[in-house]
Amino acid sequence: MPNPPDPDFENRVRASFLQQKVLATLGAEISRVRAGEVHLRAPFDDRFTQQDGFLHAGIVTTLMDSACGYAAYSLMPAGSRVLSVEFKVNLLSPARGERFRAEGRVIKAGRTITVCEGKLFSIQGKEENLCAIMQATMICVLDR
Amino acid sequence: MPNPPDPDFENRVRASFLQQKVLATLGAEISRVRAGEVHLRAPFDDRFTQQDGFLHAGIVTTLMDSACGYAAYSLMPAGSRVLSVEFKVNLLSPARGERFRAEGRVIKAGRTITVCEGKLFSIQGKEENLCAIMQATMICVLDR
Amino acid sequence: MPNPPDPDFENRVRASFLQQKVLATLGAEISRVRAGEVHLRAPFDDRFTQQDGFLHAGIVTTLMDSACGYAAYSLMPAGSRVLSVEFKVNLLSPARGERFRAEGRVIKAGRTITVCEGKLFSIQGKEENLCAIMQATMICVLDR
Amino acid sequence: MPNPPDPDFENRVRASFLQQKVLATLGAEISRVRAGEVHLRAPFDDRFTQQDGFLHAGIVTTLMDSACGYAAYSLMPAGSRVLSVEFKVNLLSPARGERFRAEGRVIKAGRTITVCEGKLFSIQGKEENLCAIMQATMICVLDR
Repeated sequence: MPNPPDPDFENRVRASFLQQKVLATLGAEISRVRAGEVHLRAPFDDRFTQQDGFLHAGIVTTLMDSACGYAAYSLMPAGSRVLSVEFKVNLLSPARGERFRAEGRVIKAGRTITVCEGKLFSIQGKEENLCAIMQATMICVLDR
Repeated sequence: MPNPPDPDFENRVRASFLQQKVLATLGAEISRVRAGEVHLRAPFDDRFTQQDGFLHAGIVTTLMDSACGYAAYSLMPAGSRVLSVEFKVNLLSPARGERFRAEGRVIKAGRTITVCEGKLFSIQGKEENLCAIMQATMICVLDR
Repeated sequence: MPNPPDPDFENRVRASFLQQKVLATLGAEISRVRAGEVHLRAPFDDRFTQQDGFLHAGIVTTLMDSACGYAAYSLMPAGSRVLSVEFKVNLLSPARGERFRAEGRVIKAGRTITVCEGKLFSIQGKEENLCAIMQATMICVLDR
Repeated sequence: MPNPPDPDFENRVRASFLQQKVLATLGAEISRVRAGEVHLRAPFDDRFTQQDGFLHAGIVTTLMDSACGYAAYSLMPAGSRVLSVEFKVNLLSPARGERFRAEGRVIKAGRTITVCEGKLFSIQGKEENLCAIMQATMICVLDR
């Protein structure tokens, strides 16, 4: 992983996280911030389920996209913003459990484009299960 | 579009919709059900925004995935269920506006696999704007 | 579709096409160049088939990616290059037939990022069949 | 990784490989077959390049899709066939070098659907470089 151009990346990531109302609504928290890797955790919440009582694929996506976006953002310079260009998600198994962990990791950080992979694990007691994977493209927008 | 194998598909789609708690939480409603095409609408809701105050990409995805899933489901036989295998989303412009319309349309309906495209429009007064597109793969699971 | 910033876009597209050796190897030709839309055609060729005798999904992708890339390139300024950031392909039906037509169309042209959709049709006599669809992200690189 | 249901999977993979004319045309060879993981290698070939002289993204895709397909196939039962449902590719760096290695690995093998990840490395002397990644969905079709 390249050295982060902004040594203060963790504060920058955490400050941006606090501005995402959807993440507060989902009860999500940051559980890890490294250069190029960010984890989020969120509880199961009945309000965000699909017809079988599992977390909806779009909510699973919300968590993974945010983890990937912040992983990319951790390697961007100060005075920049990160935007999702696109992502692709495979649903592997039902998102059921007490809580969830979304992992975002940078695969390739470019000056403009950063490519990330995301994973969503469900957690029940001591058991973890990989529920979904993401391949995502993020873009760095420099503030003017 | 092929004839739907289940003439009662609309009731089946609407019944399933009512079981998705996330769609009620988002304030979504069905605005169209045709064989192979389903539209949803949802209001802007500050609780589901990202850091710039726009609807989060994952919530945009929730609406498109549900519209695509029901479009696919409308062409599936009675006694079946629909699951999302995977989807890919491109974000085209910020999801801001008074409300949103998600459109799902079947491109190819197979016995097991159905491929759909989704669109998400923001609506502000009389103006509509295409915010995101989806290409999705759904699978038909027959109840035993 | 926005007006192309370079009125000479067709010559630019055709000149670039001639530099892609893979397209000559596949026997591909340009059959349409409009601002934001490019079509290619190619014959069936036994050398590029998979185990069932159909055109391989990667060759189908080669044609669609090139059509999408040139559709995007038609809306880029003079003195620029186009690169594929990523694409996603759904295979809908076997790519068999006498020849093929790949269509690329711009969905959203931005200053840096352009999003396209691609289609691959097989042609047998007067019959056409949609074999595959693509959703692709292209980037504009300005020559220095 | 689950145990392969067909202990003779390696012969089955190699026999199918020999039927893909496109892989012979590209000069590709199998360099690894494990249960759930298959590697291919192929030389650089000027006939398959894009406008800058690098291997075309569609050819890169051909190699990764085949590696992923065979990785999935290695875990499928005797008397089955594998088909690509869809794939998504991110291009990370130019595919230049003396030769290439495509890796396909199963992430989740289901009865019908198998999800794989693919990687394409360029090789120049002792140096290897990750050029592209794939996330792919394969389907098992049982012969009748």
